Amino acid sequence: MKPLSNDTMLRAFMREKTDYTPVWMMRQAGRYLPEYNATRKRAGSFLGLCKSPDYATEVTLQPLDRFPLDAAILFSDILTVPDAMGLGLYFAEGEGPKFERTVRDEAAVARLAVPDIEAALGYVTGAVRQIRKALDGRVPLIGFSGSPWTLACYMVEGGGSDDHRTVKAMAYQRPDLMHRILEVNARAVTAYLNAQIDAGAQAVMIFDTWGGALSAGAYKTFSLAYMAKVVAGLKRENEGRPVPVVLFTKGGGLWLEDMAATGCDALGLDWTIELSEARRRVGDKVALQGNIDPTVLFAGPETVRAEVGKVLASYGHGHGHVFNLGHGISQFTPPEHAAALVAAVHELSPQYHR
Amino acid sequence: MKPLSNDTMLRAFMREKTDYTPVWMMRQAGRYLPEYNATRKRAGSFLGLCKSPDYATEVTLQPLDRFPLDAAILFSDILTVPDAMGLGLYFAEGEGPKFERTVRDEAAVARLAVPDIEAALGYVTGAVRQIRKALDGRVPLIGFSGSPWTLACYMVEGGGSDDHRTVKAMAYQRPDLMHRILEVNARAVTAYLNAQIDAGAQAVMIFDTWGGALSAGAYKTFSLAYMAKVVAGLKRENEGRPVPVVLFTKGGGLWLEDMAATGCDALGLDWTIELSEARRRVGDKVALQGNIDPTVLFAGPETVRAEVGKVLASYGHGHGHVFNLGHGISQFTPPEHAAALVAAVHELSPQYHR
Repeated sequence: MKPLSNDTMLRAFMREKTDYTPVWMMRQAGRYLPEYNATRKRAGSFLGLCKSPDYATEVTLQPLDRFPLDAAILFSDILTVPDAMGLGLYFAEGEGPKFERTVRDEAAVARLAVPDIEAALGYVTGAVRQIRKALDGRVPLIGFSGSPWTLACYMVEGGGSDDHRTVKAMAYQRPDLMHRILEVNARAVTAYLNAQIDAGAQAVMIFDTWGGALSAGAYKTFSLAYMAKVVAGLKRENEGRPVPVVLFTKGGGLWLEDMAATGCDALGLDWTIELSEARRRVGDKVALQGNIDPTVLFAGPETVRAEVGKVLASYGHGHGHVFNLGHGISQFTPPEHAAALVAAVHELSPQYHR
Repeated sequence: MKPLSNDTMLRAFMREKTDYTPVWMMRQAGRYLPEYNATRKRAGSFLGLCKSPDYATEVTLQPLDRFPLDAAILFSDILTVPDAMGLGLYFAEGEGPKFERTVRDEAAVARLAVPDIEAALGYVTGAVRQIRKALDGRVPLIGFSGSPWTLACYMVEGGGSDDHRTVKAMAYQRPDLMHRILEVNARAVTAYLNAQIDAGAQAVMIFDTWGGALSAGAYKTFSLAYMAKVVAGLKRENEGRPVPVVLFTKGGGLWLEDMAATGCDALGLDWTIELSEARRRVGDKVALQGNIDPTVLFAGPETVRAEVGKVLASYGHGHGHVFNLGHGISQFTPPEHAAALVAAVHELSPQYHR
């Protein structure tokens, strides 16, 4: 493998010196890009994109050809693992992810098992290998998975949910069943992320989209404890350098100290917390990734630039900040506003690294 | 007016001594109660209920006849104020609130004005007067309004929204227009809540359902600043006793110090924050209302009781806690589980008040 010509993000995740603040955008390969929609049309569906290493490679690289981003992120879905467990992931038009089979009773829970990663998820590791080749050292590649709890939300509910009442009722009423699901999920996610690292992922991120729907106590019991198990089981070095682990709980701003204590290298932050506050609380333990509100991108380029400036100023002087959105970029975002964001980060951040 | 035979909640809001922790439930008069659905059927619609003082009185009292709750809350909608501004509130079946006219451009913003409360919202003050008579001193009556920002979300979006991108884009791109909307809303909400107090509301609550969708900085500028204006303009005494003001920003756990600094008497909390932490941070300034996860009510009565115990223990010994859910009760809640919650609060809380 060719050595990285831009390893700024990897150094920022390890809180090492960088000349500027690196930037990537959650869901940067997505429906706001016309070239993505064209490829998706050829692939026939979203899952068709995910399951073909050729297509996944193509769309992973698209945003890098438009914007000078400091990282690529594997194009995939957070629900590949329960799909590999045999639950039958599908996407109903305009409705989000759904599973053909839910996991709601003793029998279904007993049937759950860690999938054979190469057999069931070889399309993902294949995509990682192919993307690394295609990147040819331009920027690092981030791998990812949903968190054990977030996967459980979809597995029990059978799809998205406004209030997660089925999965939460199970957690409160039958914690034994819930812990068994989470235990299997944690082992599967660990194996899955390690396989991505073996295939060439240079950093990994755990997306805990629904941890923030829990009470503080339930979050620690049902989400954080299992993310900590995953973190403890990951390969932390590959190709002679550290593989940073990023934890992102949407709505987790109250629990940063507990998240940092898992031993991860960085925390992803949504836009509800001031970076200055997050840094004061956990900046001596972890790097911080985030956290501009993605809806800022609906305002014009001048406003985007001003808001980027505020986020950079909030983190302040020093290293250990990876610029990102606080959540995935909206499909309705004008691509030129995303361009303005990336340019502003690169233009305005060097002053904080001198 | 007959004096209150149970003023426990009013004393708790003022952090005075009480013998137990008072309890009420957000949305306690609602679709989980068969008697509510029967009345709603007779009324023809949700707005039919809200706009008739007779029906509003009937449904406000229904949960009190089932459970020994320590307060009644006016049955109404958070969007009565923009409806009174002429925007045309309606409810499409199964779709939540919508407005016939949105407020998105200079002309629409210029047209906005504070409505004449008695002329346009006399049905609300009429309901407050009639409910007070019907309560006959059993428990206090809480009045309420949506916050200026939360009203603006619906006024600009024209209904609910997943990402609030239209209203947020306006806030970022045209802060002048947004501030003008919020200024009118703050004056209208102040007049509206004062009219409710004049009519007999014994405490008032400001529901900031969407403040938590903002970044920390934008929250202070666009939501909190205008709630502070409302708080500053409210009558704080009536019928010879204080009228407590409760501020509730869903997802506002990171901002409690700023919320408490508005001069309100109590903060409503959702379930993502530990009461012990909230109390440590702001318990010397305000009372705390909350904060059990409403989905706990999908588990059985024994589990509900155990979880109530945890919430009470988290607040700990002393006064100044009003038990509530962290958000509105779900329409799918079994009423007997709500009964278990109320009973558990009354049985388990006296030990913390000795």
